Amino acid sequence: MKRALVTGGAGFLGSHLCARLLAEGYEVVALDNLYTGSKDNLAAFAGNSAFSLVERDVCEAKTDDFGAFDEIYSLACPASPVHYQARPLFTALTSVKGILFCLELARRDGSKLIHASTSEIYGDPLVHPQPESYCGNVNTIGVRSCYDEGKRMAETLVADSIREYGVDVRMVRIFNTYGPRMHPQDGRVISNFAMQALTGRDITVFGDGSQTRSFQYCDDLIEFFRRYAAVGKSGIREFFAARKLGAPVLNAGNPAEFTILELAQKTLAAIPGSKSKIVMRPLPSDDPKKRKPDISLAKELLGWEPEVALDEGLAKTIDYFKTRI
Amino acid sequence: MKRALVTGGAGFLGSHLCARLLAEGYEVVALDNLYTGSKDNLAAFAGNSAFSLVERDVCEAKTDDFGAFDEIYSLACPASPVHYQARPLFTALTSVKGILFCLELARRDGSKLIHASTSEIYGDPLVHPQPESYCGNVNTIGVRSCYDEGKRMAETLVADSIREYGVDVRMVRIFNTYGPRMHPQDGRVISNFAMQALTGRDITVFGDGSQTRSFQYCDDLIEFFRRYAAVGKSGIREFFAARKLGAPVLNAGNPAEFTILELAQKTLAAIPGSKSKIVMRPLPSDDPKKRKPDISLAKELLGWEPEVALDEGLAKTIDYFKTRI
Repeated sequence: MKRALVTGGAGFLGSHLCARLLAEGYEVVALDNLYTGSKDNLAAFAGNSAFSLVERDVCEAKTDDFGAFDEIYSLACPASPVHYQARPLFTALTSVKGILFCLELARRDGSKLIHASTSEIYGDPLVHPQPESYCGNVNTIGVRSCYDEGKRMAETLVADSIREYGVDVRMVRIFNTYGPRMHPQDGRVISNFAMQALTGRDITVFGDGSQTRSFQYCDDLIEFFRRYAAVGKSGIREFFAARKLGAPVLNAGNPAEFTILELAQKTLAAIPGSKSKIVMRPLPSDDPKKRKPDISLAKELLGWEPEVALDEGLAKTIDYFKTRI
Repeated sequence: MKRALVTGGAGFLGSHLCARLLAEGYEVVALDNLYTGSKDNLAAFAGNSAFSLVERDVCEAKTDDFGAFDEIYSLACPASPVHYQARPLFTALTSVKGILFCLELARRDGSKLIHASTSEIYGDPLVHPQPESYCGNVNTIGVRSCYDEGKRMAETLVADSIREYGVDVRMVRIFNTYGPRMHPQDGRVISNFAMQALTGRDITVFGDGSQTRSFQYCDDLIEFFRRYAAVGKSGIREFFAARKLGAPVLNAGNPAEFTILELAQKTLAAIPGSKSKIVMRPLPSDDPKKRKPDISLAKELLGWEPEVALDEGLAKTIDYFKTRI
């Protein structure tokens, strides 16, 4: 029986990944401090002896307390501005210490490590769409930097660990992802709009709503993770070396672009009878104007592309949020 | 008697700063692991009871072992590619742990903290000259990223510590700085050229030599540090808030630009009788093509600008290197 560790396993994406790994017959250990994750997300695994939760902060975790895993998924970190800006230093250090823990474990046991990086490392990009070679446009001292720079630093630690110790790590830069089990108060646009529309409050659009976003449904990302993990170490090495990237890193996102205003309109359309109106508010500082993944490398290496359209994913997500009111 | 701590105090810049602080009547503690620093740099303070060296890695330092300081200067980190690429993970973590140590100490005692950041946070810049608001162009996974991203992360930790705890920190983005007590084997262009010319070896210019650099003499930077430290906390806060920068940060460098080829020629001219010839070699990966500071903010806040011309500084530096052969 293969064993997998998922740090942040009680979170939105972590819990979907745990479900998939369990369905594939893995023994799964989730490590989570439950800061943004929740036991509710794990309810479906109750009584499943192949699953266990270690309730601990990844910054405090000791490798000696864990046996060997075949695969390690590093997902632990608050990921929404409302959560990470409440505890910026904690967030920055979670990125750094979290990946150091996973790297040490992977190095010790020769495990495959799949690290969740983020499109936020591109900041407010000046190049569209963003290929993996784009260096980004992040303000080091802005209010989003605890997340963005923490994640940039984690990529650096990964790249140097590969060069220094040959650890088998694959990084994923995850673009906006949504779906059931998103935190209803995570302050991100999909959950904001859905919760506002479901409770009849005004839908708040920041700026004029013309900024675009791409929205990836969670199942597409989980499929991405599994295909990425399935590639052999030498295949990974050759693919990225040939493309002159310093380390294995792929964008994972849905390139279909929607304006924030379109999203607000789709959300309202998906909730017939909602009494909400759309209102405009000033744009917060450091908010990226636009971001869209170039996923050609992922298509080439993994034969992957997103399959769930926004209308379909939005309907499933709104169904979930209805259970959270 | 005022007390100052200088992490990296046995290094090139640290030792000049210690000398200046001692001359101003401070009691000075230097904290250094002597990885790139050297006791030779501290020879002038031998027997000075106002000076002491704590030989320890800043990553292992405990705040409980130190009394209160009026001023803390955070300079500890390998800063030349030849040193930091030999130990990339160590370098990245030195930046992060080093500033965390200083922040904790400064917060505990209400000290002023002056943090040495770097022009490397701009990477290979796409904007010239670089103002402090420029976000940079750094490859997160390249061979220089352990230094660049470590320093970016340190800036983030500073900015969030100011926002979260009100710590009094001033950051300096130091551009190329040179002078006596540079490490003769640090692989940087001034020391390379000087040592090559002094020993009659070929002067190696990478690329075609048309890439430009700005060179700041060490005394100019030390003057900068002292003026920056002299500004009151509220003056600092108001100045940077009015300029919409997320935290106090100033460029320190000499905007006078020279091509690498010009530097090679000036070095040869300063060493009459050198048998060296100039030869071209391929440009290493991630090497910035050009970098030049915009120092208008420093001029405005500190009334500071560099005073030592390249020819004068180069002569003093070459005199120093003559003693190191």
